Parts: sequence; structure tokens; C-alpha cells
Amino acid sequence: MTKYCESIEFFDALFDELFPILRSITGPGLRQSYGVLQRYMPLEITSIPSGTKIFDWTAPQEWHCTKATLKDDQGNVVADMDRLNIEVVNYSEPVDKTLDLDELQSHLYSLPEQPTAIPYVTSYYQRRWGFCIKDDERQKLKSGLYHAKIESQFVDGHLDIAHCTLPGKSEKEVLLSSYLCHPSMANNELSGPLVLLGLYHRISQWKNRRYTYRFILNPETIGSLGVLHLYGEQFKEKLVAGLVINCMGGHGENLTFKHSRNDNGMLDKLLYHLNKHQFSHNNILFSPLSGSDERQYNSPGFQLPVGCVSRSFHIGYSQYHTSLDNKEYMGIQPLLDSIDKLEKIFLAFEQVATFENTLPFGEPNLGSRGLYPTLSFFSAERTKQLDELNHIKMLLNYSDGEHDTINVAERYGCCVTDLASAIEKLEAHSLLKMVD
Amino acid sequence: MTKYCESIEFFDALFDELFPILRSITGPGLRQSYGVLQRYMPLEITSIPSGTKIFDWTAPQEWHCTKATLKDDQGNVVADMDRLNIEVVNYSEPVDKTLDLDELQSHLYSLPEQPTAIPYVTSYYQRRWGFCIKDDERQKLKSGLYHAKIESQFVDGHLDIAHCTLPGKSEKEVLLSSYLCHPSMANNELSGPLVLLGLYHRISQWKNRRYTYRFILNPETIGSLGVLHLYGEQFKEKLVAGLVINCMGGHGENLTFKHSRNDNGMLDKLLYHLNKHQFSHNNILFSPLSGSDERQYNSPGFQLPVGCVSRSFHIGYSQYHTSLDNKEYMGIQPLLDSIDKLEKIFLAFEQVATFENTLPFGEPNLGSRGLYPTLSFFSAERTKQLDELNHIKMLLNYSDGEHDTINVAERYGCCVTDLASAIEKLEAHSLLKMVD
Amino acid sequence: MTKYCESIEFFDALFDELFPILRSITGPGLRQSYGVLQRYMPLEITSIPSGTKIFDWTAPQEWHCTKATLKDDQGNVVADMDRLNIEVVNYSEPVDKTLDLDELQSHLYSLPEQPTAIPYVTSYYQRRWGFCIKDDERQKLKSGLYHAKIESQFVDGHLDIAHCTLPGKSEKEVLLSSYLCHPSMANNELSGPLVLLGLYHRISQWKNRRYTYRFILNPETIGSLGVLHLYGEQFKEKLVAGLVINCMGGHGENLTFKHSRNDNGMLDKLLYHLNKHQFSHNNILFSPLSGSDERQYNSPGFQLPVGCVSRSFHIGYSQYHTSLDNKEYMGIQPLLDSIDKLEKIFLAFEQVATFENTLPFGEPNLGSRGLYPTLSFFSAERTKQLDELNHIKMLLNYSDGEHDTINVAERYGCCVTDLASAIEKLEAHSLLKMVD
Repeated sequence: MTKYCESIEFFDALFDELFPILRSITGPGLRQSYGVLQRYMPLEITSIPSGTKIFDWTAPQEWHCTKATLKDDQGNVVADMDRLNIEVVNYSEPVDKTLDLDELQSHLYSLPEQPTAIPYVTSYYQRRWGFCIKDDERQKLKSGLYHAKIESQFVDGHLDIAHCTLPGKSEKEVLLSSYLCHPSMANNELSGPLVLLGLYHRISQWKNRRYTYRFILNPETIGSLGVLHLYGEQFKEKLVAGLVINCMGGHGENLTFKHSRNDNGMLDKLLYHLNKHQFSHNNILFSPLSGSDERQYNSPGFQLPVGCVSRSFHIGYSQYHTSLDNKEYMGIQPLLDSIDKLEKIFLAFEQVATFENTLPFGEPNLGSRGLYPTLSFFSAERTKQLDELNHIKMLLNYSDGEHDTINVAERYGCCVTDLASAIEKLEAHSLLKMVD
Repeated sequence: MTKYCESIEFFDALFDELFPILRSITGPGLRQSYGVLQRYMPLEITSIPSGTKIFDWTAPQEWHCTKATLKDDQGNVVADMDRLNIEVVNYSEPVDKTLDLDELQSHLYSLPEQPTAIPYVTSYYQRRWGFCIKDDERQKLKSGLYHAKIESQFVDGHLDIAHCTLPGKSEKEVLLSSYLCHPSMANNELSGPLVLLGLYHRISQWKNRRYTYRFILNPETIGSLGVLHLYGEQFKEKLVAGLVINCMGGHGENLTFKHSRNDNGMLDKLLYHLNKHQFSHNNILFSPLSGSDERQYNSPGFQLPVGCVSRSFHIGYSQYHTSLDNKEYMGIQPLLDSIDKLEKIFLAFEQVATFENTLPFGEPNLGSRGLYPTLSFFSAERTKQLDELNHIKMLLNYSDGEHDTINVAERYGCCVTDLASAIEKLEAHSLLKMVD
Repeated sequence: MTKYCESIEFFDALFDELFPILRSITGPGLRQSYGVLQRYMPLEITSIPSGTKIFDWTAPQEWHCTKATLKDDQGNVVADMDRLNIEVVNYSEPVDKTLDLDELQSHLYSLPEQPTAIPYVTSYYQRRWGFCIKDDERQKLKSGLYHAKIESQFVDGHLDIAHCTLPGKSEKEVLLSSYLCHPSMANNELSGPLVLLGLYHRISQWKNRRYTYRFILNPETIGSLGVLHLYGEQFKEKLVAGLVINCMGGHGENLTFKHSRNDNGMLDKLLYHLNKHQFSHNNILFSPLSGSDERQYNSPGFQLPVGCVSRSFHIGYSQYHTSLDNKEYMGIQPLLDSIDKLEKIFLAFEQVATFENTLPFGEPNLGSRGLYPTLSFFSAERTKQLDELNHIKMLLNYSDGEHDTINVAERYGCCVTDLASAIEKLEAHSLLKMVD
């Protein structure tokens, strides 16, 4: 029986609570959203003061916006943040001004090719103000005067990052991260944190964890730069894999993994391997041209083995960054399916390691340990054990610190998950030791 | 005219002398067998005392077995070691017991799918007793009492290894080894030592040897572990190639080479190369799952460039480890053919080396050494020399310590054996020096 | 309007002045030829005294030859150096001797398969004398006495090498070299120095040069050995590319580049890359078997990234090293076309470099530098900039000191020349720094 916190009802209600909050890369909306999630996972918040130098960037001031309306001279509402929070350009500076339509036009954003969609526009790092409206409505605007009023403040505060970990036997870490800074956006925003939460619940229930799993939520770009500011050196040493999780709803059956830049991490390799054995996700190569926080993790100074997973890519759907990216478009059921698929992949990942044979000179005496028959006679019983005996021999011969378990599986012609029992026995007999 | 010691009559007589000896991994049968071969090659014996720790193993006690019979209550012989020495399970503990058929069954070994073959069974590392019989006979056994009598002893003694070398100009070594521990087995046993002996005779007659050839005979598995115990560190430094030789008789025209684990040794490379130039052996990749002593040489702590050669692989024939693996099955003529083929391969191997050009800055002045025409005019004579002039230029340019002569031959499009004359001239002029 | 020194008339007149000079690998003809070229490029002459040890060679004595005639007993001229300077074997020792036809034959060189061509023959490193004639004429020679008279001297002097450089922002050098030692040979000789001169003029007019260009003229083989004697260690440190230029006339539309031995230099890579983007030269692999000075640069002690460029290869035309290799065969127009094509390739080469991103931790804040839009909204203007924005992102991510700009271009799917504007901007903002 599914627990409530893994049910569709749970995620549906959580979505509805988070969706209307006016988030930005800093400020009260982001903190409020973290607070909602903290009910279900032990997120700790690390705060970086505004003005802190973060590599080539600076932690921005917080944007506090309480009111944003645009009205015509009859008092008719053209745009109002309280109606839909993306109607104000995010990070708009304050304004209180009457102006004619010509002057107003340069402060309006609409999509001629999607006349019924309101675009989502931000101007984080240059001061502007503006409103986002349907192009249909824009075309109907008449000459005359309009009144734009935005009550906003830029205040010194913090850049907030939320994180928690599930420790494993090894200090080697897997990073699972998503971002939480867009206002009312469903697939390209809330889908990520919700799947991250679901994955946290699943992994927390595993009996053993080989690896340590670190879960992070941050505002996009500046937040992941902040994460690297805090953990970059540690990640260089300990990170064996990572995924930025977003766009996990929408249509499309399969997950798509954008691999890490160097495409030589253990997860990169596993993702290719699994597709030869009953998995069927898409693998695409890294590019710095689009995407999200994985671009920071894969910058040349870090080159971390961090990829990105999506169900439908933001480049691939017209609802991206518009009012049409809502729950109707996204759906809640696909999120649960995404959680299932990701859990399966990380269960397989737990079998991926590079071992050293602790008795590498000649073959160990397996018979004396009960791991091999002591009689040179092929009985029916022995034939039944044959695959596991072979797994054991393969693991011992190729565990030289240079071949990982995927190499061993591929040489033998099986899936790395098939090696689980042999790995467990050999580790139990201290014949294999993981290479750190 | 073929010398006697290279004749089919010689090998036939030697086979007949060795076949009936009751060998095991230690003890008098093994020593007696070495003694027979010592008449024809200067084998030295190195003895490791029983109980000596050999990596994860221990040198076992010797098994001295003088009598083994199984009779029914009428005194009819069911099994008798003196009739055929594999009728007793090798390394059986002593027994002198009357027991009924039910109890006896767990001490009997037979092959239901080959009812007329007697299996060969060993239990080296766990104490048991047993008899091997034809399944046809087993089905006819009647209820009643049987008497099992085995007179055997386990005594402290030695693990014996036999070896000799043929020195070459270089200290770099080629290992040629076979094993000699099975009792009356023809193809999967005696074929190996006999071919090793033949190869010893051939190589001893070469005028020059670039490499040093080391010949080793040992009991399988524990013997090669003993070899590594004695020579492992030396092999890591000096071994450039090696072959475990067995199953050299039987049907099948071509030799099959199981390559070394890393498949990057000079012999591995040569074997692929020669098949592009009028050779036609089979090349198969290393696996630790089956095979023999090459598994020890290729364990992760050693990773020596040692492969294995067979004419018909033991996995490939139903006579393997049964009374049907006899001279009728194996034949003596195929052994001579195997010797011929292996000698040709090692003659080619003598041309495989990595050289350094001793005058690497610009081209050497070949004209002043009589190695190149001094006139820029293409005479008919020069055209005749063209291939050798080209071999010389190719060898000089690519002898940079990184390309070997196979690389040079493949760039030029010839067999490495075609370079022999140019190599000889350049070494004679001290223009090439082998890289150690 | 073409300047005179880039015109066909200029090269035509220069060819006619240089062609009749009796050159050899040393001596007055070579110096006179350098003198002609010094009018148009600032060649400095470095002189290595005769007898100097140059690696495995010795700088030879100069050959001063003032007269060489062969006459029959009627006084009819059979050969005369003053008629055509290749009629005497180059480097002939003095002789003044009457001899009969039989004895004379071993001093005559002709080409039975090209009976109307006079061969060009040299004997630099062994003392001989001889005459080169048409085989047609040779067949008509009657029995009787002939008088051979050669007035030549071997005198201590110098091996002369001519060079000049065009400095660039980087000390990394590009070597452009040709040889000038053959007497009256057009394509396989004068074409090279003439194209080198043309290229010098072009590169001298570039506004910026990333690389330093070094131009060298030398006698073939011993001259390039002399160059390596003088500059070899410097070249190992500074040379990033080089070309030996010869056979630049003749028929055939495309240039042919013989790549460097290791085929891993920046120019090697560029030449392959450009052929995917509207260039169409031929690329052939290095061989030490034929060719010219590139064999010395690519000897195992140097392994410099120096290739060779030709329009029609000397192996490929029957006029090679005969009196038929003249201006009629070669043409002057193809030389100008060769200069055009080489300039285009080196203009592209200026964009080839390995950079390091100076702010490698995360992405730099491009918006603050005016290099990226500050608004998350896809305007038409932004779409126009898209390619350059992408070039910038690609360059920043992959400039890790390991990927060069060709790697970046190929990942993005453009020609490296398309990156020029982005490279310029990023270098101007000090975001990229060339790796030395």
C-alpha cells in the first residue's frame, strides 16, 4: 500500500500549495517555498549575504514586491500581479507613472506567435520594470494614458540554499539537485522539487546505501554558483555522480538524460549500459548552450560528473516560460512515474563501483571459503551455480582498481545489476575492497 | 634428415612410457615423469616444502597411493586403480570399509550421458574417497554389500617444479610452460609436455636468439602459483611473452591462441599481425572462467603477457577428463605439426622488438656506411634494392622507442619477418639499439 | 590593384633571372641566388664553415665549377655546362682526359625511357665526374676518342642558410621553408622559393599576427640539417607548425599537404578540418621514404610538426629531375594561385589556439560585460546574435587548456574561422588567455 507521502494526492496538494507563491531568486517567496518542503524532508538552509562575491558574480539583493498593476485611463486592469504573479516582470524596479501607449510599449512583453499565452520574463541583473500580457490583449490596447504602479524594494538579505543528505557506507557522494525560483511555473519548475522530494523518500528507505546522497534546492544559476562557492572543493573530491532534475512532467514516455560534459562519470557510463538491458531512456550529450545548473557544475574549473534529467525538455515544448506551463499541461501522474524510474536507476548505480581484489596474486582459494566446489566434477548442482561462480571469477580477475563493475558486466555479457549477489559475497569475505 | 628426437617414433615411445604413471599434483608419479623428460632436456627441479604458504594457498602434502579396489560381495572387481589409474578419485583418503549400495552411491562417479567413459575426478583440497566407473556398469550394480579399500597416505614432502632456459642476447624472457599432474590423460595433459620438449629442441638449435627462453613444467594451478611464488617479481620485470601449452593434439587444422588478459603484449600483437601474412591460427580473447595456468599468470597482481595455446580446446571435446582422452583420440602426428607451427611463430617473434635509432637527429648519413646509393640517379640496380632501402628508412624513422617493428612493418605494408635483413644490418652498424 | 611584387610579371622576371644560375648545395651559385631574393625580403645569411660536424654529417666543401665540356675527336660538343648547366654531373671532380667510348660510358647519364630529356644528376658525397645527355644523342655516339674536361675545385667555404621572421603576438613559431640548391629546375626547385617570397609579402601585410612566422631558404637535406643544428632546440620549444614548400607549379587544381610524422600538430588538424568547410586540398600521410627536408624535421630526435606542401608531387610527374622541368611545364600562374591558397590556410591558422578561460569557476557574468542579454526574453534581435552568443558559450566552456578552437568549432558544427569574432571579443575582455 502506498504511503500518503508517496501518493498522487500528496503531490497534487503540495503542488497546489506551492504554485501561487511569488518566488524569485531571493526573498520571501523562496523562503516560504522551502518552508513548505521542510515539512517532508529535513532541509537545512545555508544563507549567503547579499553582496557576497561568488566567483565572477555577486549575491544579489532581495526583491520584495507587494503590488504591481497596470491600468488604462478608465481604471481597467491590463495587468495585475495578484491575478497571476508572472504578469509583473520579475525583479522589476518600483514605478508609479502615467504614460501614453507609445512609451508603455517598451515595458510590455507578449508573444505574437502564442497570442493567448502570457510570457514569464525576468531581469535579474539589470534594473527595469515591465508587465507581461497576452498578445491578444496587447493588440486591443487603445491610444491614451496608462498608469503603471509597482511597489517593490531591493533590500540586503540573503541568497538561500536548502540541502540535506542521506549517508551511505562510502563518503563518495551523489548530488541530486533542483531549482526553485520561478513563480507560477509547473513543469519547468515545480516538477523538479517535487520529484526530488519523492526520490528522497525512496532512497531514505533503502536498507543499505553504498553512496551518500546529497539533496539540494537552490535558485537557478546564482544558486548553483552559491552551492559551488560552498561545496565546490568538496564536490571535486567526493562527487561521483549528480543530476539536476527538472521538467519531470509533461508528455513523453521516457526520461532524457543530458550527460555530463566529460561524459566519463560512473552515472554517464551506467546510463548507456542500462539501455542495453531493458531500460529505455534517452541519452544526449552535454552542451553549454542551453539547460540549467548543470552548466555551472560542468564549467571548466569544476568539470563535475553532473548531468541533467528531464522528461520533456524545455526547448521541446511551446508552453515553456509562459502561463501555459501549468498543472493541466504538466500532470501529477508523470511525476510519480519519474520518481519510479529514477529510483530504479540509482538502485542500479549502487552496484557500480571500482574494486580492488585484496588477494590479487593468483586466484584466491575459493574452495576454502565455501565459494567454489572442491571436486572437479560437473554435477547438476554446480551447473545451477555456474553464473554466480562466473560472476565471482570475473569480479576477482578484473578488480584491479582500473575496471569497474560495468566493465566486468559487459565483458561477461550481463547487466551490472546481475552482479549484485556476487559483489555482496565477495565484499562479505573481504575479497573486494572499493577503491576510493 | 629428421633427428630421432624430433621423429614421430620418438614421441610415440615417450608417450607410451609416460601415460601409465599415476601422477598427481605432488608425489612420486610427478617426480618419475620429470625424470623421464630429464633424459632429453636439462630440467632442474625446484622443490617447495609441503605447508609452505603460497599466496592465498598452501603447498599440499604429497599423496602416496598404492592400492585402490572396489569389489562386490562376490569378490568381483568394480574398480581397480591398477587396471586404470583414474578409477580411483585422485587424492582419495584411505578407506577399508564394507558398505551397502545405497551408502556406496555417494562415493561413485560416472557420466550418464557418456555411459562407456570413466570420468577423471580429483579432490585435492578436501578429504574424500571415491571411485570412477562407467555409467553402464553402475546401472548394473546390485543391492548388497561392497568392499572399498584404498591404501593411501598424505605425507609431508614437496611441490616440485621443473625448469630450464635457453639464453639469448637479451635478458628479456619468453616463458613456455605446460603442466604435468594428470594421470592417464593424453590430449589434456601429455600433449603439452611433449610439445614443450619438441620446441626446446628446435629453439636450442637456432644460431642466434634475441630473447631468453624459459621452459617450465609444473602441476596445474598450485604449480603455477608456486612458479609465481618463485619467479613472479622477476617475470614482472623481464617477461615479454609467454604461452601455456596444452591440448596440442586432437583434430582441427589450426592452433588456437587465447591471448593474455591485457592483450597488449608483443606476442599478442604478433599473433594478430601474422594472420594478415600467410598464417592462419585462431585468436581468442582472455577469460578467467576456464583454461589453466594462464589464469594465475593473468591475475590482477601479475597481469603478465602470458597466453595459452591449444589445438583443440578442452571445452570443445567430449573426451575431456575421461578415459576416452587417450592416444587413439589424440594422435602423435598433430604434436609434430604443433611444434612446427609454434617454432615458426617464435622465429617471427625474434624480429619483434622496440628499437631506438642511435642517431635520431636528422637522417644518418647512410651513403658513408654503404647503406645507400651516393648518386641521385635511379639505376636498375637501385630499383632492386628499393624494398630494403625502404625498410631501412622506415626502421630509422620510427625507431623512437615507441614504435615496435610490427608498427614499422604495418606502416610499410609488409610482414615483420620481411624486415629481418634490414634489422640485422642496422643492428650491425649500431644504428638501432633495442629498448629494454 | 595588385602591387608589382605580387604580379605575374614580377614572378616571371624573377624566375628568368634565377633559372640559369649554376647552383649547388654550397658555393657561389647559391649565394648569388640568395642575393637576388634579398632585394625583396630581408633575408639574413647564416654561414656554417665547411668541415663543421652537423649531427651525423659534415658541412661539405664548396664546389666551384667554371667549365665542363665533352667533345668527340672532331671537336663536336657532346655536352657543355654553358649550354645547360645540368649537362655536368653536379659536384663533379676535375678531369682533363681523352678516353674511348667504352670507358666514357660509365661517366654518361641518360634516360632510355625519356630519350629527349637530359637527366639532372648529383654526387654530393662521393667524388665522381660525369655528363648528362639525351639518350637519343647517346645512341648516336660513335666509337672513337672523346675529350672530357671539367674545371672544378673543392674549396673550404661555407654552408649558407637564409632566413627572416615576421613577429606575432606570441613567440610560438610557424616555419615556412623551401630549398634552393638545384641548378636549372623549375617546378622542383624555383617554384618553392618564389611561393615563399609571395607568402612573405602577404603575411607581412596582415594587421595582426597571432603567431611568429619564420621563413627559411636552404640547400636540400644538408641545409635543413644545418637549420636543425642552429635552431633545433628552439624549434622543439616554439614551433607549432611548419611547411616545406616545393613543386608549387605544374598542373592539378588542388594543393597536396603531406602531414607531419605524428600528424597531431595544429596545422595537421586544421587541414583536415578545413576540408569539411569549403576547402579542398589533398591530405596525405607522412612517409620517410620520399620527399625532402620534412624528413629531417620529422626525424625521431625532433618529431617537429612540419609537413610539406606541393601542387604536383615530384613522384607524380615524369619531368622531375630532367631538363623538361622548365617554365613551359611549370607555369607562373599556378604559383600565384598557390600563394592565394596558402595565405587562406594561414589566415585560418591564426584562429587555431588552445585557450584557458580565465574565470573557469562557473560561467562568467557576461551580462555585466555587455556580452549577453540581461533579459530572459527571446527578442528578434537576440535571435540574430544567437550564433555569436553560442560561440562565446562554447569557447568559455571548452577553453580548459585541453580543447583547442578546432575542437570547439567541431562540437558546435562550424568552421574555426567562424569563431573569429567571438575569440576577438573574449580576448579583448581578457576572458580567454592563450596557453603557451
